Amino acid sequence: MAIKRRKISIIGSGFTGATTALMVAQKELGDVVLVDLPQLENPTKGKALDMLEAGPVQGFDVNITGTSNYAETADSDIVVITAGMARKPGMSRDDLVTTNAKIMKSVTEQVVKYSPNSIIIVLTNPVDAMTYMVYKTSGFPKERVIGQSGVLDTARFRTFVAQELNVSVEDVTGFVLGGHGDDMVPLIRYSYAGGIPLSKLIPQDRLDAIVERTRKGGGEIVNLLGNGSAYYAPAASLTQMVEAILKDKRRILPAVAYLEGEYGYSDMFLGVPTILGGNGLEKVIELDLTEEEKQALDKSAQSVRNVMALLDV
Amino acid sequence: MAIKRRKISIIGSGFTGATTALMVAQKELGDVVLVDLPQLENPTKGKALDMLEAGPVQGFDVNITGTSNYAETADSDIVVITAGMARKPGMSRDDLVTTNAKIMKSVTEQVVKYSPNSIIIVLTNPVDAMTYMVYKTSGFPKERVIGQSGVLDTARFRTFVAQELNVSVEDVTGFVLGGHGDDMVPLIRYSYAGGIPLSKLIPQDRLDAIVERTRKGGGEIVNLLGNGSAYYAPAASLTQMVEAILKDKRRILPAVAYLEGEYGYSDMFLGVPTILGGNGLEKVIELDLTEEEKQALDKSAQSVRNVMALLDV
Amino acid sequence: MAIKRRKISIIGSGFTGATTALMVAQKELGDVVLVDLPQLENPTKGKALDMLEAGPVQGFDVNITGTSNYAETADSDIVVITAGMARKPGMSRDDLVTTNAKIMKSVTEQVVKYSPNSIIIVLTNPVDAMTYMVYKTSGFPKERVIGQSGVLDTARFRTFVAQELNVSVEDVTGFVLGGHGDDMVPLIRYSYAGGIPLSKLIPQDRLDAIVERTRKGGGEIVNLLGNGSAYYAPAASLTQMVEAILKDKRRILPAVAYLEGEYGYSDMFLGVPTILGGNGLEKVIELDLTEEEKQALDKSAQSVRNVMALLDV
Amino acid sequence: MAIKRRKISIIGSGFTGATTALMVAQKELGDVVLVDLPQLENPTKGKALDMLEAGPVQGFDVNITGTSNYAETADSDIVVITAGMARKPGMSRDDLVTTNAKIMKSVTEQVVKYSPNSIIIVLTNPVDAMTYMVYKTSGFPKERVIGQSGVLDTARFRTFVAQELNVSVEDVTGFVLGGHGDDMVPLIRYSYAGGIPLSKLIPQDRLDAIVERTRKGGGEIVNLLGNGSAYYAPAASLTQMVEAILKDKRRILPAVAYLEGEYGYSDMFLGVPTILGGNGLEKVIELDLTEEEKQALDKSAQSVRNVMALLDV
Repeated sequence: MAIKRRKISIIGSGFTGATTALMVAQKELGDVVLVDLPQLENPTKGKALDMLEAGPVQGFDVNITGTSNYAETADSDIVVITAGMARKPGMSRDDLVTTNAKIMKSVTEQVVKYSPNSIIIVLTNPVDAMTYMVYKTSGFPKERVIGQSGVLDTARFRTFVAQELNVSVEDVTGFVLGGHGDDMVPLIRYSYAGGIPLSKLIPQDRLDAIVERTRKGGGEIVNLLGNGSAYYAPAASLTQMVEAILKDKRRILPAVAYLEGEYGYSDMFLGVPTILGGNGLEKVIELDLTEEEKQALDKSAQSVRNVMALLDV
Repeated sequence: MAIKRRKISIIGSGFTGATTALMVAQKELGDVVLVDLPQLENPTKGKALDMLEAGPVQGFDVNITGTSNYAETADSDIVVITAGMARKPGMSRDDLVTTNAKIMKSVTEQVVKYSPNSIIIVLTNPVDAMTYMVYKTSGFPKERVIGQSGVLDTARFRTFVAQELNVSVEDVTGFVLGGHGDDMVPLIRYSYAGGIPLSKLIPQDRLDAIVERTRKGGGEIVNLLGNGSAYYAPAASLTQMVEAILKDKRRILPAVAYLEGEYGYSDMFLGVPTILGGNGLEKVIELDLTEEEKQALDKSAQSVRNVMALLDV
Repeated sequence: MAIKRRKISIIGSGFTGATTALMVAQKELGDVVLVDLPQLENPTKGKALDMLEAGPVQGFDVNITGTSNYAETADSDIVVITAGMARKPGMSRDDLVTTNAKIMKSVTEQVVKYSPNSIIIVLTNPVDAMTYMVYKTSGFPKERVIGQSGVLDTARFRTFVAQELNVSVEDVTGFVLGGHGDDMVPLIRYSYAGGIPLSKLIPQDRLDAIVERTRKGGGEIVNLLGNGSAYYAPAASLTQMVEAILKDKRRILPAVAYLEGEYGYSDMFLGVPTILGGNGLEKVIELDLTEEEKQALDKSAQSVRNVMALLDV
Repeated sequence: MAIKRRKISIIGSGFTGATTALMVAQKELGDVVLVDLPQLENPTKGKALDMLEAGPVQGFDVNITGTSNYAETADSDIVVITAGMARKPGMSRDDLVTTNAKIMKSVTEQVVKYSPNSIIIVLTNPVDAMTYMVYKTSGFPKERVIGQSGVLDTARFRTFVAQELNVSVEDVTGFVLGGHGDDMVPLIRYSYAGGIPLSKLIPQDRLDAIVERTRKGGGEIVNLLGNGSAYYAPAASLTQMVEAILKDKRRILPAVAYLEGEYGYSDMFLGVPTILGGNGLEKVIELDLTEEEKQALDKSAQSVRNVMALLDV
């Protein structure tokens, strides 16, 4: 009968996981449990404690704990999976997929054991295939397994457009379908500044350059950092999805969704426009595509299927 | 005549500097310039861009840029200095002081050149001596050179007390004087939960343990992380000081201030209660101390003087 | 299994009720139902709709509805009662008590019928007696019936002290016991600026004047407005209590609590320091009082009892 | 050299003016001065004080003062004019225009005297003509005199669409040109949910009904309230414009702008898409209109001209 705080567990205490924990706490969306491997238990606890000690000054008032024990994640409302390897020099893409798929399986089994009613959001790359792996392992209904890709892609796109036009990012929107990054299918005709189609405001060659920069947006950060990959914008994207669900906002956001015929695909996860609310992924929004868009999406879907073929599910 | 955004430059793009940049941007306090050495220019740009790309999703709307060129910091309202070395194995404390003092000198010369009217906030340790170095190098009036230590120490103290009592951190206050960390002089009689003196709520031995934990608060995080030191709570503390000044809040916060006779000390920086507002450090608040407190503060001041003796100013 | 928004019903759509609805919505604490009498149904709907239309611009995303039908309040997590008459010229105090007590009874019966598990917060004056009336009518356990008075009284006190010292309101705290307004028992020794006891910062005659102004704080606004009474600060105070409960913050806040022996009183409501969290009023904090303070509190309690004698419970 | 808070003066302390003051303070955009006639000085002071007393609880930390003396508005960064009569029974529309024009003239003279560098935002109806009156009286350059209408109209439109689709208001945008309310020219083809044109999501007859409801949105609230008109959403709209300017956001927002040939009109104010930033109204964005849209806009412009003909400028 008493009112309980929501609970969000974040698997993986690397930069993205930790930054997501911070942003979720800043919004006081609920108590946060940051989880990593036993050999990383101390650093995980260290990050959680450091963050918690920011609370009195930042004005947030939730618990943040670090652990390697999944029992502490029990009864989470939402579980965010950021765990996984980045590709190392000399590692084939196939090895990466196989390795991360194993991690997904192992993590998901623990998540399901302790939080059988949770909603899972997956960030780990290649995200479309990894979300499928989590879905299959969890046995959860499709609305409770969601991947992140489009929120981040459009955040980058919006940033570049706002810079190009020298206007507020708040008034720029973007729209993508398909896989993450290189496989992204941007729908420029559904992208605007102040409601005005971008094609009326930005010359085509500049628009093309912005789309290309967005596509390579993750790589741009990797190249600049030299060692590691982006985490601020990915964490912000995950946080927005968590908030949409925990506040039952029914936001229209691009997400990696399980498809059962939508857009002509079945039994796979792909980035599509969705409604995120208290039930998780409440709806896939279907749009008419042009011939060209459909072809690009087919290509993107095929690319996802190629990765899925490596999965042992 | 037009209204311009405030400008905050942050020197040092390590974890603390970068996290401060994020938190300042989240509050839309102004445009942020993150500065580091030329050999770190790319990672600095990478962090800044990643953060900027979080803006559309987090709902902040300021520029964040990374650079190694101080010209880009021109006309900053506030400059935060987080640059400096952490002590490495085999390095003596004296070497650390000498090294960081040189960094302070070099950074400050650049800051003064491009932002002669700025207010400088120093985080680099040992903070009391480093703030003195910045003060002497800058030639700025004392109200425009401020060190951070007490906001962080009290944030940790408040966290531990809130946990002990199982109450909101918002209702717990702490009070410290003197140097940072080990040299901290806590004034428990000025520390409360819901306005009630802590001594009425927590047994003395538990209070002692909390004070001791606070004193070692930085070390606790270092030990847990294994590699590196705290940055979330330090960044939050710096951000609170920046906000107090940029919004001219006249907040009563502990800060490392230049003393001219207050508490019996002169020509040195020490942690004392202050008022932070649009002029920077607007006032040092003097309190009557007990004999015991005064002795502890003397010891803390002597410790600061010992470090200052290593400075070449 | 799906995540549902919290629900807050506010009884009484006058200025305080409506402003509380706005502030609760601004914080996205949950969906808001604003309730008033059938003859006021249209204006109630009008205020709710006007507020709802502010959402896209203010950035809040909850439902706000106006109604005279208690069925729409069903399953509220929290119900705030602001309904009641203000004293009219020629009306005796006793008539006011009797009238508002009847309103409390009637409102509470409806609240209990539709939200048997809710937590009720009462603002209606004379608040100590009205909260008792609600408590008796509801049959709720004591932790789920709470009155507001001290949050408002201390907010005013803090404002006046901050002005006197020219410092941020964030760093000033106040502490009151006993009845609302005139019957307020301020504990100056538990009131601080930056943790420093006010008696060290403000001369006694000025402190006395501030206490007196706080005591008459409601009247000061009534006199200025000429027609009506304060609503911004009362609404903010109610909102803070709602937030403390819905986020299970365990805040230490003064509240009108049912006493069973605490401070020497039983079977009555009186303003005391409490912990507000997910269970409602989780604890009454008992303090040692000086002889003088105890006498003032006795007088305040007697004054509450005199009003309670007029109740038909 | 010191950092000063921004200053916002709000002329007219009625519901809209007062609610704007609250919302501007909540965002800590700067100190607020609420101004009304000498005979309303006390109620104006009362509202300002009540609001100020909400600060410690709401967590805002700016000054709010009420006055009838324009000297207290000196050096405002922004002045918001909400003063003016509502039409009374038996009053002709022409009388209303003449009366409010006189008020604009008198208010503007005072504003210009004390804040010659300010940016003025006008809410008073009929807003296109009243903004013209303020412009002519002030002698200010066109970028520093702006009227509000489209932000409110689109806020209402977005609310209705979000309800229709059961999605978050955050993901719905609207677009209007022309006069306020009845004279509004909605551009449905530039209005979206999640970037998807509304015409693909909502049947035409429902869309028509929503547009019609938006057009009559002010009247809907007037009819419900029975006595008075909307103030929450208008205040939120003004606050968004103030924030866009004070934070130099360069937001793309509809505003009542002085036209010099744009859209084929000159020497008049009309609602058009604009960029609002630190210089005020930084740009009018011109769009190609369909024949039908252009005709509707011509009609709207003619309607504004008819009102302007009543002005004595």
